[in-house]
Amino acid sequence: MPTDRLSTTLSALADPTRRAILARLARGEASVKELAEPFAMSLPAVSKHLKVLQRAGLISQGRAAQWRPCRLEGAPLRDLAAWLENYRRFWDQSLDRLDAYLKKLQQGDPNGSRN
Amino acid sequence: MPTDRLSTTLSALADPTRRAILARLARGEASVKELAEPFAMSLPAVSKHLKVLQRAGLISQGRAAQWRPCRLEGAPLRDLAAWLENYRRFWDQSLDRLDAYLKKLQQGDPNGSRN
Repeated sequence: MPTDRLSTTLSALADPTRRAILARLARGEASVKELAEPFAMSLPAVSKHLKVLQRAGLISQGRAAQWRPCRLEGAPLRDLAAWLENYRRFWDQSLDRLDAYLKKLQQGDPNGSRN
Repeated sequence: MPTDRLSTTLSALADPTRRAILARLARGEASVKELAEPFAMSLPAVSKHLKVLQRAGLISQGRAAQWRPCRLEGAPLRDLAAWLENYRRFWDQSLDRLDAYLKKLQQGDPNGSRN
């Protein structure tokens, strides 16, 4: 089981159903019942996913007695984005290389077309 | 076990040792032995982590017979960053709110200082 915060975030996100739940909550708050609807899942199964997301701080749940809406919390995603920034040059570089390669191809084009 | 690509990436990253290995490889290629050195781990234990990273496409290993250097591969990180972009407004908004709050505090400052 991961214990550091970033591992907990990544582990919570490493599931397509949980990412689908976040995608739904990105459109606005929703009750557990509303979140369960698009999935062929029982309420307890969805609740289990919600607990994982909640423990990771990715969602919070309102205290209104009847309708306890879930909402997305951005802070763990911000921290993940900050960590990813350290590696940006590894994909920007690939784009640079692709760009250089495409330019080379264009220059070597026998028709000399440059559109 | 996760089956989709993004889940595989997230799952591989959800471990502090594996992220430390990536951080080391961000500084340049390294052999398995070199990667194992900073950790109090056996070579087989490190190899297991490397396999997880390799399966996720986050690293590749050279074919040179003696010294098979590992290198970081940016593509899965780029895809993760692209997915995260969908949620940027959830932390940029928080920053906006913090900014508004700080401005309010400044305006209410009894000394009227604005530095």
